Amino acid sequence: MTKVQDPRAQKTRVQAAKLRSALKDVNAIVEGRNTIPILDCVLLRVEDQRITVTATDLDHCAIRDCASDDRDGPDSAKWLAGIRGFAVCLPAKRLEAVLGEFDGDAMVTVEIDPKSAGRVIVKAGRARFSLPTLPIDDFPLVEHVDTESEFELSCSQLSDALACVDHAISSEETRYYLNGVFLHPVGLDLRFATTDGSRLARWQLDGPVGSTSFPGVIVSRKSVEVLEKLLASAIKAKKDDQGEPPHVLIEVGGEGRWLRFSMPAEGGGDVEVVAKTIDGQFPDYDRVIPPSPPHCAVIDRSALAAAVKRVAVLVDVKSRAVRFGFTEGLLTLSVHTPELGEAVEELPCHYLGPDFELGLNSKFVREALGAIGSDNVALRFDADAGAAVRIVGWEDEAEAGALLQILMPVRV
Amino acid sequence: MTKVQDPRAQKTRVQAAKLRSALKDVNAIVEGRNTIPILDCVLLRVEDQRITVTATDLDHCAIRDCASDDRDGPDSAKWLAGIRGFAVCLPAKRLEAVLGEFDGDAMVTVEIDPKSAGRVIVKAGRARFSLPTLPIDDFPLVEHVDTESEFELSCSQLSDALACVDHAISSEETRYYLNGVFLHPVGLDLRFATTDGSRLARWQLDGPVGSTSFPGVIVSRKSVEVLEKLLASAIKAKKDDQGEPPHVLIEVGGEGRWLRFSMPAEGGGDVEVVAKTIDGQFPDYDRVIPPSPPHCAVIDRSALAAAVKRVAVLVDVKSRAVRFGFTEGLLTLSVHTPELGEAVEELPCHYLGPDFELGLNSKFVREALGAIGSDNVALRFDADAGAAVRIVGWEDEAEAGALLQILMPVRV
Repeated sequence: MTKVQDPRAQKTRVQAAKLRSALKDVNAIVEGRNTIPILDCVLLRVEDQRITVTATDLDHCAIRDCASDDRDGPDSAKWLAGIRGFAVCLPAKRLEAVLGEFDGDAMVTVEIDPKSAGRVIVKAGRARFSLPTLPIDDFPLVEHVDTESEFELSCSQLSDALACVDHAISSEETRYYLNGVFLHPVGLDLRFATTDGSRLARWQLDGPVGSTSFPGVIVSRKSVEVLEKLLASAIKAKKDDQGEPPHVLIEVGGEGRWLRFSMPAEGGGDVEVVAKTIDGQFPDYDRVIPPSPPHCAVIDRSALAAAVKRVAVLVDVKSRAVRFGFTEGLLTLSVHTPELGEAVEELPCHYLGPDFELGLNSKFVREALGAIGSDNVALRFDADAGAAVRIVGWEDEAEAGALLQILMPVRV
Repeated sequence: MTKVQDPRAQKTRVQAAKLRSALKDVNAIVEGRNTIPILDCVLLRVEDQRITVTATDLDHCAIRDCASDDRDGPDSAKWLAGIRGFAVCLPAKRLEAVLGEFDGDAMVTVEIDPKSAGRVIVKAGRARFSLPTLPIDDFPLVEHVDTESEFELSCSQLSDALACVDHAISSEETRYYLNGVFLHPVGLDLRFATTDGSRLARWQLDGPVGSTSFPGVIVSRKSVEVLEKLLASAIKAKKDDQGEPPHVLIEVGGEGRWLRFSMPAEGGGDVEVVAKTIDGQFPDYDRVIPPSPPHCAVIDRSALAAAVKRVAVLVDVKSRAVRFGFTEGLLTLSVHTPELGEAVEELPCHYLGPDFELGLNSKFVREALGAIGSDNVALRFDADAGAAVRIVGWEDEAEAGALLQILMPVRV
């Protein structure tokens, strides 16, 4: 049976800024160096007046979808009705670079080269690029995820949760199960926890409908980084629109091995991240949280952050240890590094306990303070200089905020 | 004979922002890694109500001087009259980092530690830093320069001249005499020339009084970089002041081996750069300038720059070659890199000669265009594809601007 040749061209027309923004979203997945050439590519699919771009690194996959609209030129719908859909694998970063050189408002046409097999022509104005493609069958599509459980959060809820715990994600490869955020329900709550063995951050919120039946999953660091960017775009786009706050749907499938996050994208359309979870057992971190250490010092958060940053100029780059000396009403920060010098700074603080000294990693303290929203923070500790220190927000004589952080002291 | 101990303390008081800005100016000289520890230091000298900071790398030296004024606290003059001057070698980058952590308006005191020899105390607010010092006798002061010849330029004249030729400074170590700007008088003119063997930039201005007797000197790349920053600060500061445009005094000494540049500094005071010139013979570059190539193409400068940038996305990273095809009224830029793809862009151009093709390095073309101020540029070339191409500004049917640039073609 001979196939009748479809006379319509395989091409599409799209506003440069729109396609660029779609590529930017999915290209966050594409690694700088790949041993497998197809992973340098983005899959561009044109059908039914929609453009979909997909990128993958085998463990993560991002899919961005944008419908044709008035920005893609006058009579866009009519124009597109006369062409034929297609799918093609194009070099991801290079296509983004090419689009980056056009004016945002420029009308770009992307077309399968009718004369030269395996090439795509990208045109705008008087410029014309001919790019090589790879076979679309080689593009590794992430396996289909059958949703086993799902819930919704507002984008800002998820964004806040990740931002407050991401600094404590471990980068130690041997304990790979710490290289992510442990997302899990506890009773009616939903928790996000991270630890690198020296510190711990835990964010908790009232679990939305569906979250109680969610399994505990470890969301990889890369997923977190990609999601943070996409959530920020979604929130920003909706702020400009003044519409409903955007939501993100979180689905789990494959017996907890796959997660899917779906949310609106900046500039219209949707974006989806499908990510493999980290296959491991997150430690039972509740055991290391001291229930209620007897001593408590309450300090102005921004003053403490500034003072730690100052004395840390002379900190030893390895241990980053700053000595915290508590006396009644006064916190004295000090650093003594023989070859660099000494730094001392005093801060007023609400503290009534016995004189006490402990050492903390200045970077960890600053990151912990950066995650806290309230004006004051409470440091709670035991009389034992080796015991864990709790850091929490503090308002009106009580702990405040959904965030609990633990720091293990260091030797000074 | 016993020396009577002076009871006055060795200390000073200065606004944090002021001392920070002084350090920033001289620290541009301090290299990131030094094998000689004293070169990591800045010499801070306090005398007669002035603070002077000096940094050196043995070949270059920067000296910044700031007088005490009202910004250093009330009754500053009276306060300072009661203290004793001193000089001390402090770790340059660390002192800048410490000051960077104070509010700009904070009052900083710098004091020789009376209790601990060889230490300096830097204080502001409730923070106190104790820094180690090195003996001031070890600080290598650059030899005294007896001025043999001098002239003055406005800071913007020197800044423009350097900015227009600095991109063609060679970084090839074997031809060390190309690693700078050749500053030399020709008749009544003063010229700044740079070349890296593949391109040449030459800036020319009416020589100021004194410049005709100046010897030809090669100003090192590092001097150029430091000067560009300081000139920009001087110009910016005076723009805020709305005063006279600032000038820079350029002196030569030691039979052409040393240069001194003196100019006003941002935020009051003066700054001086003493630099060893490059001891070598700059080539007779006039020989490579084609006198007047027969063919001339005039093109919109910014359109050409944008088009070259676009097609260069697919350029081979080694040769960076873009093909320039001239036909009557049209310039076609093209790039063909087998593994990356092809790019083509057409530009209208005033050209009446025969069809002609040549290859140029896209980076060099973009840098050359970036240095030109006029709206249009003229490319002048011979019928020989291997001959040098002249690039000059073009206004109203004539060459414009003080800048002449030459590019050698590359194979395409």
